[in-house]
Amino acid sequence: MQPIRVAQFGLGPIGIESIKYLATKPWAQIIGGIDIDPLKQEQSLGRLTGISSLDDVSVYASFGDLCEHAKPDVVLHTAGSSVTRSIEQIMPMVQAGACVASTCEPLLYPWLTAPLASAELDAACMNAEVSVVGTGVNPGFVMDLLPVVMTGVSTRIDCIKATRVVDATTRRGPLQKKIGSGLDPDVFQALFQEGKAGHAGFCESAALLAHSMGWHVTADDIVETLEPVVADKPIKTEYVTVEVGQTRGLHQMVKVMYQGQLVIDLDLTMALCEENPHDTVTVKGAPELTLTFPNGVPGDQATVASLINAVPRLVRSTPGLRLMTELACPIHDKVNILGGNHYIMPAHQTVG
Amino acid sequence: MQPIRVAQFGLGPIGIESIKYLATKPWAQIIGGIDIDPLKQEQSLGRLTGISSLDDVSVYASFGDLCEHAKPDVVLHTAGSSVTRSIEQIMPMVQAGACVASTCEPLLYPWLTAPLASAELDAACMNAEVSVVGTGVNPGFVMDLLPVVMTGVSTRIDCIKATRVVDATTRRGPLQKKIGSGLDPDVFQALFQEGKAGHAGFCESAALLAHSMGWHVTADDIVETLEPVVADKPIKTEYVTVEVGQTRGLHQMVKVMYQGQLVIDLDLTMALCEENPHDTVTVKGAPELTLTFPNGVPGDQATVASLINAVPRLVRSTPGLRLMTELACPIHDKVNILGGNHYIMPAHQTVG
Repeated sequence: MQPIRVAQFGLGPIGIESIKYLATKPWAQIIGGIDIDPLKQEQSLGRLTGISSLDDVSVYASFGDLCEHAKPDVVLHTAGSSVTRSIEQIMPMVQAGACVASTCEPLLYPWLTAPLASAELDAACMNAEVSVVGTGVNPGFVMDLLPVVMTGVSTRIDCIKATRVVDATTRRGPLQKKIGSGLDPDVFQALFQEGKAGHAGFCESAALLAHSMGWHVTADDIVETLEPVVADKPIKTEYVTVEVGQTRGLHQMVKVMYQGQLVIDLDLTMALCEENPHDTVTVKGAPELTLTFPNGVPGDQATVASLINAVPRLVRSTPGLRLMTELACPIHDKVNILGGNHYIMPAHQTVG
Repeated sequence: MQPIRVAQFGLGPIGIESIKYLATKPWAQIIGGIDIDPLKQEQSLGRLTGISSLDDVSVYASFGDLCEHAKPDVVLHTAGSSVTRSIEQIMPMVQAGACVASTCEPLLYPWLTAPLASAELDAACMNAEVSVVGTGVNPGFVMDLLPVVMTGVSTRIDCIKATRVVDATTRRGPLQKKIGSGLDPDVFQALFQEGKAGHAGFCESAALLAHSMGWHVTADDIVETLEPVVADKPIKTEYVTVEVGQTRGLHQMVKVMYQGQLVIDLDLTMALCEENPHDTVTVKGAPELTLTFPNGVPGDQATVASLINAVPRLVRSTPGLRLMTELACPIHDKVNILGGNHYIMPAHQTVG
């Protein structure tokens, strides 16, 4: 088996962690990084990650620059939350014959806000016989993919409810900022209304659920609201300072009505110094199913895992702009499972 | 879209529930039942299930008899726990061009105990371009597929631990018997050692986990033990009577060592009058993930759901003897998702 040649587009905190995890995979060959920051372009991936085996792997200013040196099979895209901008960045990768996995949150379900660009990307994927998928942990797992997997053992689904409570104190700086930390609550609310703050991709989680369940709603039926969570004591983290009365996080909700019933009910709290972090998913119906992660699923680490672990399934999937639910069953790909099946069987017995 | 023509092989409690659920699926056309019981052959599926729309659907004595009247696309196989016997029954279905989903427990991972028969079935599947899969809730979901799905957000896995506690009081009669209810503990232990009692398919859950994680163990490394759970008060259910000192259920364990470490640790208690039923899965590693179903996943209902919901993914899968982890993401297929994608998007906007 040839290794899968992977390039990393975007060298922020998630991009760097992505390379560190990818470097542990025997099936992957890391061929380069891409970042707009000239200071990063001067360094090798080895220097940026501390992994000496990557000392000879360069950082390029653009995907085009990278392609002059090596052709990737897969690009990992961790470069912001704008679906339009991400599709613009991904299109040339697809046209160059690379599959793309992205942590851009709305790419979990890009048809919701960018149906025309999605259709163009889908067509380009099929033309080049490659696949693109948006993934992560939220969106990408806790409040969408995992509930869908639970419905695999349901005979009737009345409502899908997911609650996630995250203590953002130990999370990366960009996340602490996007939840409004340190902002006046009115300012944060205004930024959210303008689409410039808050948890991105939340409506897309709901859209993936509705699509998977065959609930034919439109974007207008997916109603999102936000309440700032206000600090009652001062908070200082590595990245932000919050005074009493300022925002320390968000309480964001998405509800979907279908045929007069509440069918999707997503409830997210992400705040500094938030107590009792946990994730709970309830599938109301038959049987009634409730599942809890008592400590929650850690965000950043699980996002990187979700991204990298999706690659072997992505390269095997049907070409197109794919949904996470359309790839094979999520799995931690420790070894190169593409290299053939080693079945567990009685000792010294072989078949074939 | 043509509906998928489905036949039900085995009309015990699970088979009957399977038909009832299948009858709610717009994508399915139920073309017949198959059972060795002459009393059932005299009745229609409508009579056996109480669903009047099935009044004209017959029960046949064999798969061959059914084929003289109609050709199924899929056969649902719910007829016992012997992997050898099940493969013998499934082989002619595959040769006739039908996909097969089965609740036969060891079929979750048939390579473990029947590698040669599995290889033959796999070859027959590829020859006929159809797929076979073993599924259910346990084995099939709680202690194998779900932990695998969880590892999709893991960067390192040290050990997979799953604990399931089931109160069997309200479960079907055959299950109450297979957990030893009413037997002398020594008799039950002896039956278990002979492979004639206990929870079937438990080692197969471990094998699926080991296979999915790339832990190259053999069947000898998968160690299963059983302890009878003894009644300290008399118990009477619809199906069995248990005196003090007799068996009221089982405590069954499977452990797998790999490279000197305990990597799989499965712990199952199924007993009458068992308190605090629940399911807990822990993926030790990075991040550390623990998930609990506080009330557990109900067995029989979820088994039927898992079986029927697998069908649309099964008919789309790569031909062969498949594992549940090789099908697309588990999903409740309410509508005919095979009939094309209806994407959730802004109102009145269409693409393509």
